[in-house]
Amino acid sequence: MTMNRQIILAERPDGMPDATHLPLREAAMPKPQDGQVLVRTIYLSLDPYMRGRMSAAKSYAASVEVGAVMEGQTVGQVVASRHPEFAEDDFVLAPGGWQAYAAVAGKTLRKLDPAVAPISTAVGVLGMPGFTAYAGLEEIGKPQAGETVVVSAAAGAVGQVVGQIARIKGCRVVGVAGADDKCRHVVETYGFDACVNYKDDDFAEQLAAACPDGVDVYWENVGGKVFTTVLDLFNDFARIPVCGRIAHYNDSGAPDGPDRLPGLMGRILVKRLLFKGFIQFDYRHRQPDFVQDMGAWVRDGKVRYQEDIVDGLEHAVDAFQGLLSGRNRGKLLVRVGDDPTRN
Amino acid sequence: MTMNRQIILAERPDGMPDATHLPLREAAMPKPQDGQVLVRTIYLSLDPYMRGRMSAAKSYAASVEVGAVMEGQTVGQVVASRHPEFAEDDFVLAPGGWQAYAAVAGKTLRKLDPAVAPISTAVGVLGMPGFTAYAGLEEIGKPQAGETVVVSAAAGAVGQVVGQIARIKGCRVVGVAGADDKCRHVVETYGFDACVNYKDDDFAEQLAAACPDGVDVYWENVGGKVFTTVLDLFNDFARIPVCGRIAHYNDSGAPDGPDRLPGLMGRILVKRLLFKGFIQFDYRHRQPDFVQDMGAWVRDGKVRYQEDIVDGLEHAVDAFQGLLSGRNRGKLLVRVGDDPTRN
Repeated sequence: MTMNRQIILAERPDGMPDATHLPLREAAMPKPQDGQVLVRTIYLSLDPYMRGRMSAAKSYAASVEVGAVMEGQTVGQVVASRHPEFAEDDFVLAPGGWQAYAAVAGKTLRKLDPAVAPISTAVGVLGMPGFTAYAGLEEIGKPQAGETVVVSAAAGAVGQVVGQIARIKGCRVVGVAGADDKCRHVVETYGFDACVNYKDDDFAEQLAAACPDGVDVYWENVGGKVFTTVLDLFNDFARIPVCGRIAHYNDSGAPDGPDRLPGLMGRILVKRLLFKGFIQFDYRHRQPDFVQDMGAWVRDGKVRYQEDIVDGLEHAVDAFQGLLSGRNRGKLLVRVGDDPTRN
Repeated sequence: MTMNRQIILAERPDGMPDATHLPLREAAMPKPQDGQVLVRTIYLSLDPYMRGRMSAAKSYAASVEVGAVMEGQTVGQVVASRHPEFAEDDFVLAPGGWQAYAAVAGKTLRKLDPAVAPISTAVGVLGMPGFTAYAGLEEIGKPQAGETVVVSAAAGAVGQVVGQIARIKGCRVVGVAGADDKCRHVVETYGFDACVNYKDDDFAEQLAAACPDGVDVYWENVGGKVFTTVLDLFNDFARIPVCGRIAHYNDSGAPDGPDRLPGLMGRILVKRLLFKGFIQFDYRHRQPDFVQDMGAWVRDGKVRYQEDIVDGLEHAVDAFQGLLSGRNRGKLLVRVGDDPTRN
């Protein structure tokens, strides 16, 4: 058998991570212990939350330790099983990490049926990003028919699903993205009513024009300029699910003034805004509803999705930089090994 | 009959309001029209929200117009009635404003029975401030037994009730106030577990020591330094009912940097905080529950209250300045006329 290949966290980044922080190395092929399964990685999911795991700062999950393999969800195929519920060649969703092979406890795996849905969707629209969109809208955003929902990072893995669910609920949906082709895609493929490029000079005017009745739900994925622009458009009782702040993940320290914190608190009071941070596993009790609803929506073509697949583990770090800077087009995956379900 | 006396909004203040903005004037005695009642003011309630009504800026209620009598809730006695449900000498809760007599529509009045509770409590613990505390805790704070609740402006009309309800719910309750005698009073009379003076140099250390298990609910009445200090103590899933920001009501413009807005949003995300602004009438459907619960708590001595009564309409502006700067001790009332229910 060949050697394993892994990307480890060699050093904590203080800004944009690169190959010095995340080098590729060869390692011995892992051997599954009793109760474990050896999984060959097909797809590695790259997600913004991973930037947090690279930092020492306390967040909602423990940091990855320096010297350890970077964590991540993978879709893979069983090579060898020492767990009674899994057999060779089974497709599985696994916490495999940034590596070609992983020996993982059978109880952490979920079997995937390629006849039900493409296996890659288990880390996309039918997986964590899709559930993030579903749970945050259901539990915090609560969009009502006729309301206006603004979605930042609208073309991303979560944003694309948020907007489509809000459309299903009968809302006017306005996306915000960082490229004209993303905006076109969001409108043409996902059926958003409008999408505005935040890099345009007249972004604020365009966003206001796209939201003639104000904003009732703002899906916060990004922070920065998009957040402060939409802040001026909130209606009374607007809800803001705070899902991510990708514009700030490489920040170090507070930016220069003026201090806009008192102004934000003032708006929260006067407009009776709701801000709620969340991470999808806070709402895991909604997982069965999600499986049922999203499964049906995807089957019926009411929710569509796009994947951005990069080939080769050796390109994972570059692809992750692209994710943090908005270069990806849809749900970002690294194809680490051959997918026998695609031709 | 004598003349009426009124305090009008002559000019919008841009900072602390004074007698140039709020002069006292004599006016003709109002005559009740059909359906109206002439009410003699006994108590005028002074509340922080009134500062907002003096400004032109859009808030959750319309501004008082320049030249009009300042608005406010009053407890009074009927002098003459042209409404079938009210008779001379009835005690009523009225939207009487800052004046000695008001002719108001009968449908805006609520009759008060001095045998049930002191009539002044209709603008205090059994009125708007009490309901504000009740609704914000029930609908947003949702304190659970064993949790820690921090209450700013703890000695004020709302804060004193918030803390006592949280104690009834089985929480550890820590007050914050701006004077040592207020802090003592909050602990001794209202049964808070602790109270910290935010003017002390080691306020942050004292507050942290009083909250050894962190903070699960923070009742925001004040903003400023108290808010930014408690921010460091929030547990995951903390709830912050944003009820007031009295430290900022006289602000003009954003303060100097650094800009703490991105840091606040980062905490909201990572700690999954809930911030919700509100005004009590958003939750008026909870009024019947409030009347039942708070009535019983006050009767049983589980909720106590303190009033700070200033005599004479001519002292209302000075008393209001005191309210904005923390000089009051308990629920602030101006006794505009004689209270025949108090010997």
